[in-house]
Amino acid sequence: MSYTDDSLALHTDKYQINMAQAYWKDNIHQRKAVFEIYFRKIPFQNGYAVFAGLERAIRYLSDFRFTESDLAYLREEGYAEDYLAYLATLKFTGTVRSMQEGELVFANEPIMRIEAPLAEAQLIETALLNIVNFQTLIATKASRIKQVIGDGISMEFGTRRAQEMDAAIWGARASYLAGFEATSNVRAGKLFGIPTVGTHAHAMVQAYRDEYMAFRKYAECHKDCVFLVDTYDTLKSGVPTAIQVAREFGDKINFMGIRLDSGDLAYLSKEARKMLDEAGFPNAKIYATNDLDELTIMNLKAQGAKIDVWGVGTKLITAYDQPALGAVYKLISIEDEHGEMIDTIKISSNPEKITTPGRKRVFRIINRANHKSEGDYIALENEDPQHEERLKMFHPVHTHIAKFVTNFEARELHRIIFEDGNLVYPVPTLQEIREFAAENLNVLWDEYKRLLNPAEYPVDLSQACWNNKMRLIEEVQQKVSERTWA
Amino acid sequence: MSYTDDSLALHTDKYQINMAQAYWKDNIHQRKAVFEIYFRKIPFQNGYAVFAGLERAIRYLSDFRFTESDLAYLREEGYAEDYLAYLATLKFTGTVRSMQEGELVFANEPIMRIEAPLAEAQLIETALLNIVNFQTLIATKASRIKQVIGDGISMEFGTRRAQEMDAAIWGARASYLAGFEATSNVRAGKLFGIPTVGTHAHAMVQAYRDEYMAFRKYAECHKDCVFLVDTYDTLKSGVPTAIQVAREFGDKINFMGIRLDSGDLAYLSKEARKMLDEAGFPNAKIYATNDLDELTIMNLKAQGAKIDVWGVGTKLITAYDQPALGAVYKLISIEDEHGEMIDTIKISSNPEKITTPGRKRVFRIINRANHKSEGDYIALENEDPQHEERLKMFHPVHTHIAKFVTNFEARELHRIIFEDGNLVYPVPTLQEIREFAAENLNVLWDEYKRLLNPAEYPVDLSQACWNNKMRLIEEVQQKVSERTWA
Repeated sequence: MSYTDDSLALHTDKYQINMAQAYWKDNIHQRKAVFEIYFRKIPFQNGYAVFAGLERAIRYLSDFRFTESDLAYLREEGYAEDYLAYLATLKFTGTVRSMQEGELVFANEPIMRIEAPLAEAQLIETALLNIVNFQTLIATKASRIKQVIGDGISMEFGTRRAQEMDAAIWGARASYLAGFEATSNVRAGKLFGIPTVGTHAHAMVQAYRDEYMAFRKYAECHKDCVFLVDTYDTLKSGVPTAIQVAREFGDKINFMGIRLDSGDLAYLSKEARKMLDEAGFPNAKIYATNDLDELTIMNLKAQGAKIDVWGVGTKLITAYDQPALGAVYKLISIEDEHGEMIDTIKISSNPEKITTPGRKRVFRIINRANHKSEGDYIALENEDPQHEERLKMFHPVHTHIAKFVTNFEARELHRIIFEDGNLVYPVPTLQEIREFAAENLNVLWDEYKRLLNPAEYPVDLSQACWNNKMRLIEEVQQKVSERTWA
Repeated sequence: MSYTDDSLALHTDKYQINMAQAYWKDNIHQRKAVFEIYFRKIPFQNGYAVFAGLERAIRYLSDFRFTESDLAYLREEGYAEDYLAYLATLKFTGTVRSMQEGELVFANEPIMRIEAPLAEAQLIETALLNIVNFQTLIATKASRIKQVIGDGISMEFGTRRAQEMDAAIWGARASYLAGFEATSNVRAGKLFGIPTVGTHAHAMVQAYRDEYMAFRKYAECHKDCVFLVDTYDTLKSGVPTAIQVAREFGDKINFMGIRLDSGDLAYLSKEARKMLDEAGFPNAKIYATNDLDELTIMNLKAQGAKIDVWGVGTKLITAYDQPALGAVYKLISIEDEHGEMIDTIKISSNPEKITTPGRKRVFRIINRANHKSEGDYIALENEDPQHEERLKMFHPVHTHIAKFVTNFEARELHRIIFEDGNLVYPVPTLQEIREFAAENLNVLWDEYKRLLNPAEYPVDLSQACWNNKMRLIEEVQQKVSERTWA
């Protein structure tokens, strides 16, 4: 039997469906549960991460429904009719707080907080993580690469090596919001309004079996010309041919430059630059592609390579050196049988895997004297650090490391996105998100932004939040030690 | 202006659109072009790769059309009306030969061969590579992991860490066809008929704030029970509670086992095994998850870990240690102005990047005495190695390395998939593909299948194919050296 792909409700791990069924059977599926999404380590040993994925998450939650084909499949899998009847009625009715796309995020702080009936909150976990993990990973990688490119132009060229199609288009979007200037993926251009770029490939030179003919034919059809010069021999054939065609066409084209896609990019770019300058084309730019990442770009720059435009593919779109972000979705509070909210914890022999219980808010503590951030401050729901004269910030593991901050602005990072299932957040345009991401980087000291060994940005817990965590750890340890088994 | 996502025709690099326009304007867009897809290196230093992606590629080619919204977007981007009118008429009319999904493939042999009007062949490149690169990568990784798991049960659990949604479901399918037994992704189960698995998460134990209650509630609702035992303390709390609940429920449930998701899996699995055996549950299985890959699994087995079922997530679904396959799409032959097919080549200072010109067939040379493969043999279109009494196979780089094979079967690996745009290939079921993949591994010597330092499988060119390549290299070198520029 074959089913239509008409819904993402089943884009989840089976255990979510089975847990939701147990909750529903026990009639606790409507109890209010609070989950938080966070990651434990910033990827690429970078000093910060850039959050992305909210827009896709909003679409997913807005559209969340079990369709007839979903229910038919679950029926075939043996799920009971009364449970299916319940699933058929489901839509997302919860409240979501989230960082905004383009916000800088750090390890161990809640990126999103979902408060919803227990079964609903459980069913949406997998898809939310799938979205947030990938898009945040790529936005972070793009921002990291962009730091190195600096004033150069950066372009995302990775589709052919992306991990299937969604990764290509959402990765192009994540790259753009984090500072890239354009993508080669036309569908991403169509769907998200990202500028698209591209001229021709080796195949065109091969199709004409002659560089000169190929460049001419391209120039006859397109005003903006970037010629790819390495099909046969970059310096002996490609660059001279590009110059010849540029001269022949004169003002009839914009000779934007040449693209190098193989060989020693440092050497070739310097030689090509000389040839272009001597031929009277000082404004023609040199584009480079070929497995670039932040390290090769930094090295090429250090060697004085004359590259103006960087096309980055595989290493960006797959986050090659760390292709997964490990954001998790943890229960931090749940309604008990009396309707009271009880904070919950997960203990682990691995100390950094212990969760921080309770509903929390995240503040960026900005020094009013220099407009730079002193760190992030995680407080319990009812706390407002802005009321403090002198804010104590202490390290959540090495608690003796502490500092006091005065004259600060405590900027709250979460926005309410859904309220009781209704979208209340005015979704910004991609341009707005991109500007927001750029502005956020301005409040970070450069020491957090460098490629190698960035300083560790403080993410501290309030005293009340820390005390709450310690209390719950003790409670669980007590319970485990008292437990006897039949 | 916002556009509907109703087509994949624009899921391509912009340069394809621009090259196709130049071909169309020059009226060579209908010339027959032949492209081949191949990769230059097997991923993960594995001894073989497993081809996947054909089914998705077939759907993509069958549906290939520029929709109204595609054309409206291109119009806004400034493309000329007459070109758009041409694009509006396009559908795929070419002939495709391909390896079948589940076939073993090696470096530098054509996986797919596309013969189509030049413009069409160009427009489909990016999407085909996007599909084939990812799915082949994951099928190969899954096969590699499965070699180590051996008789154990292997399950794909990676959705939350996958690179967006397509990667999750097509990755689940690739894993299954390469030998995995199940996935946690329910949508992949719905769409592809893959068995799905999953019981409960830490969140359920936390929701009840009591392991005993959580396990009981799960057992009251589900007959098949695997209890997750590491929420608080695996050996002191989780395993004893699982045993207690299994005893209390007796025949009312199938106590399938326990799942370990953190801590020292070698130690915990051995201790848990003893506890389960002593409690009278020798058939209860131990499931393990937590960042597993082929190396950790091999190590756990070497330590005598008592793990029966392996849940593999991040490291499989992202192909973590090499998250991209570099398959390329190269023009190997093109019709000239007289209607004759001319072979083409791309030269590079990097010798392994030089293409092998001409339309080629790939044969697996199987020794009739032992039914093992002697290697693959790439011949030109008009050659048939089966007619040879004594087949000479020589290394395409180190040409002095050669062997003669007699008493062999030359099994042709390509099937015709589309003929002049018509799908002529009877698409096999996923079950059939999975069995085919398993059978293919039987013809490989174990030396090619081992995890570390596998032997290099021979992929050789016929003498005619090699001569043709050498002839074209000389031709191009001659041309470049004779060229003078204005």
